[in-house]
Amino acid sequence: MRLEGSHFIGPDRSARGGDVFHGIDPASGKRLEPAYREATPDEIDRAANMAAEAFEDLRARPPADKAALLDRIAAEIDALGDALVERANAETALGPQRLSGERTRTCNQLRMFARMVEEGSWVQARIDHALPQRKPLPRPDLRRMLVPVGPVVSFASSNFPLAISVAGNDTASGLAAGCPIIVKAHPAHPGTSELVAAAVTKAVRETRMHPGVLSLLHGRSHEVGLALVRHPRVKAVAFTGSLRAGRALFDAANARPEPIPVFAEMGSTNPVFVLPGAMEQRGRQIAEGLKNSVTLGVGQFCTCPGIVVGLEGDATKTFTAAVAELIEASPPGTMLYEGIRRAFFDGVQSFARVRGVNMAAQSKSPADESKNQAPATLFTTDAQTFLDNDLLSHEVFGPSTLLVKGRSKQDMERIARSLEGHLTATIHGTPQDLEEHRGLVAILEQKVGRLIFNGFPTGIEPCNAVHHGGPYPATTDARTTSIGTTAVERFVRPVCYQDFPQAALPAELRDGNPGKIWRLVDGQMTRE
Amino acid sequence: MRLEGSHFIGPDRSARGGDVFHGIDPASGKRLEPAYREATPDEIDRAANMAAEAFEDLRARPPADKAALLDRIAAEIDALGDALVERANAETALGPQRLSGERTRTCNQLRMFARMVEEGSWVQARIDHALPQRKPLPRPDLRRMLVPVGPVVSFASSNFPLAISVAGNDTASGLAAGCPIIVKAHPAHPGTSELVAAAVTKAVRETRMHPGVLSLLHGRSHEVGLALVRHPRVKAVAFTGSLRAGRALFDAANARPEPIPVFAEMGSTNPVFVLPGAMEQRGRQIAEGLKNSVTLGVGQFCTCPGIVVGLEGDATKTFTAAVAELIEASPPGTMLYEGIRRAFFDGVQSFARVRGVNMAAQSKSPADESKNQAPATLFTTDAQTFLDNDLLSHEVFGPSTLLVKGRSKQDMERIARSLEGHLTATIHGTPQDLEEHRGLVAILEQKVGRLIFNGFPTGIEPCNAVHHGGPYPATTDARTTSIGTTAVERFVRPVCYQDFPQAALPAELRDGNPGKIWRLVDGQMTRE
Repeated sequence: MRLEGSHFIGPDRSARGGDVFHGIDPASGKRLEPAYREATPDEIDRAANMAAEAFEDLRARPPADKAALLDRIAAEIDALGDALVERANAETALGPQRLSGERTRTCNQLRMFARMVEEGSWVQARIDHALPQRKPLPRPDLRRMLVPVGPVVSFASSNFPLAISVAGNDTASGLAAGCPIIVKAHPAHPGTSELVAAAVTKAVRETRMHPGVLSLLHGRSHEVGLALVRHPRVKAVAFTGSLRAGRALFDAANARPEPIPVFAEMGSTNPVFVLPGAMEQRGRQIAEGLKNSVTLGVGQFCTCPGIVVGLEGDATKTFTAAVAELIEASPPGTMLYEGIRRAFFDGVQSFARVRGVNMAAQSKSPADESKNQAPATLFTTDAQTFLDNDLLSHEVFGPSTLLVKGRSKQDMERIARSLEGHLTATIHGTPQDLEEHRGLVAILEQKVGRLIFNGFPTGIEPCNAVHHGGPYPATTDARTTSIGTTAVERFVRPVCYQDFPQAALPAELRDGNPGKIWRLVDGQMTRE
Repeated sequence: MRLEGSHFIGPDRSARGGDVFHGIDPASGKRLEPAYREATPDEIDRAANMAAEAFEDLRARPPADKAALLDRIAAEIDALGDALVERANAETALGPQRLSGERTRTCNQLRMFARMVEEGSWVQARIDHALPQRKPLPRPDLRRMLVPVGPVVSFASSNFPLAISVAGNDTASGLAAGCPIIVKAHPAHPGTSELVAAAVTKAVRETRMHPGVLSLLHGRSHEVGLALVRHPRVKAVAFTGSLRAGRALFDAANARPEPIPVFAEMGSTNPVFVLPGAMEQRGRQIAEGLKNSVTLGVGQFCTCPGIVVGLEGDATKTFTAAVAELIEASPPGTMLYEGIRRAFFDGVQSFARVRGVNMAAQSKSPADESKNQAPATLFTTDAQTFLDNDLLSHEVFGPSTLLVKGRSKQDMERIARSLEGHLTATIHGTPQDLEEHRGLVAILEQKVGRLIFNGFPTGIEPCNAVHHGGPYPATTDARTTSIGTTAVERFVRPVCYQDFPQAALPAELRDGNPGKIWRLVDGQMTRE
């Protein structure tokens, strides 16, 4: 497929803007063709109106139609073959193996939502039958289920050019809910976005869905994003990226005459606590796992562990030396784009300037600026310095971590208590450690969305029981996840039907339960 | 019990503020003793800190403890006997019958949440077992459930001095979730609030819960409310009241360094569509039901039907005459407080000033200002006038309704499409009407939280399947309800445990499923 450098307003290609930008190969700095243009106000308006029109159709479609669309999108993405991985690699330097794996995850994710839609219980149907004889007042017949909210804008991430991008988790969960999607492409991988949007458009056509169910708009400026968030036809926003950008969209959405929810996943520092027993027994093994997790994808994961807390002592000394050695042996890696690398170096420098913080190790091979490389970096400090410097708990996006040494269990708890919201926290410990540090677990439960025991936070599983979210500033809505089947809950709201005739009810709420979905009927869960 | 005119900081009475106000008997204008004082910044801070301390305890309590507390609160409110109804009636003039009924609903609501907590499935537990052999990567063990967010501030409503006040739906659902509650009392019924808070405090003591699980603060100024919303220990806000006040709290919460959710239920106009067949067959009966619904509680319900849409013709002419006659025969009623009555008269005057709007009827007996009375009022207009004047779709809180006559099905749909978000919409029709107006139903589904067929919107049932919410401006979060068991979802967020040892997991996520709750295990709903 030849790239045209265009937006998709539904199936229609458009590229009317004057302002031009290109994808860049970060490993070479080379400009990639074709040129992409900023979406114009008119293109934004057309996409939003088309999404609103598509919503009227999509919301009324039976589950099978939505499942067929999701399956077909997965098939069309698979059918893009090597061209997709090649372009994605040219734009991100994440490597063909990782990108093939990410494609698999993306397609699995689409199919996971297809199966969820087919099964149908996700609408959380509830029925309370009428009690006409009840005193003093009869009870009416009440039936409630979740319905889609309307057009959703999804801001693609830079670090997952497939799985959190054009046909990623937001699109899969949004379409499953019945919401058309307008994707704001990430400017670091416009060609990858165009390829995937073409696959989606083809799937939409082949499954005879309304052509407006997905649009794709390019843009580097804040204006494109803000105009989308402010458009009156848009009813919800999903975002994965930086705190600053996420908060700006959140603020803009809340300032609308009709505020809309912004589900922004803004990353975090993902603290790791290594308890004394584990440090003693498995220090070397944990050091290796930590190094792998910190440097995976050149540290460009929302769940990259940026803080590691241990207690002073010989075992921790050995552990620190092991991590330092592994970090030094780690080659520098090419980051996604120049801005991310600059921010990484700024972050590293800001840490290095803090009195009491020691840069303990860095990749021995020098980072090649022409290849946009960043070195793996290890800092160490003590608990008091950490607690005295807010800065140290903030995310440095990239392959860097800070090892904090406390003197006591109380220090560990103080550190935990000082934390803002994070996506994850990790505890390494023996069963006895865990018993002795119940207080720490209780604190961390209040700080994060996912607690990991004896593992590492990177590598998240899209499934039913996962939660990828957390208290602010990890996200703007701690009740929601961006990954896993419950991600669909972002884009729905309940509607209750009172005393409706059977024929006028959605199938999910009819007496016969034609889809055999799980429902709460008069207080009992049942599929009857 | 003697009223002391004090706040409750947990169990501690306090009244340090200088600024004083009283409850007023709206039926006589008489000042009611004792005096109440504005909460001071220090009292607000103490209440918030005590709630945060109580949270550490409450979140870890087994379901049985929370259920016992809720049951005991209900019992203590019952034990207040006539004194509660008398004081509530003196402060609101809602009448002993209605207030006794509201007390029953309040206690039933508390017990409903007690049963929900005991049953336990509300935590939405999900388990995906590990797949250690999976290729290319093993799957970890993931277990997710809902946990409480922390201290909640609940702004009591004026119109439900018991059911949406100190021990009302927010408190019941918040405590069920495991969140301590700080109630900002409504200044129109401070004595009622004090009585109920004393009952709650007694229940807290008797069930040996942490004393900080409920605090009660009085205040008339915006400052008390805003200080509560801005307090860093507060993690969520629930509110029932006006759009202006709700939006102000929402904006303040979003402007915090750490934004928190505001679940504001801000009322609505609750449009009623009377389709031609129903108008023909049951016009008189609908007119009676409408009059009852409009004048119930002097029109002071969030679900009072303020817009009625019909089609021009003889049947509608007869219907209009019948409604007019019934409205004229309705006696004026005492409103909750002077400010509400003034706002009602302002609203009525603003409607009367619109060219094309006709004040078709008003209570024949004159409204007595010394008794804070408002007359039942009926306006009529045509579809075009309605569509041309935004003002007419806004709520006039009180016993007033506007009958809009359209010329065609298209007019009805245009009116429906022009609506903002509402809590409810009602359709009166025959099965054939409903078939012919599918388009109307599809539009209304996107505008409201509850759709009623051949009934009236007032009189909401707290149960599993109800939804009392709706798109903005009905609420600030269309995904949530303030009434019914799903109200608990406002105050929780998911936490996911990865590879946790059994002993460190909450009971709800352990293999044995000790509470026999419904869980989604490897994709299957089960109680095993």
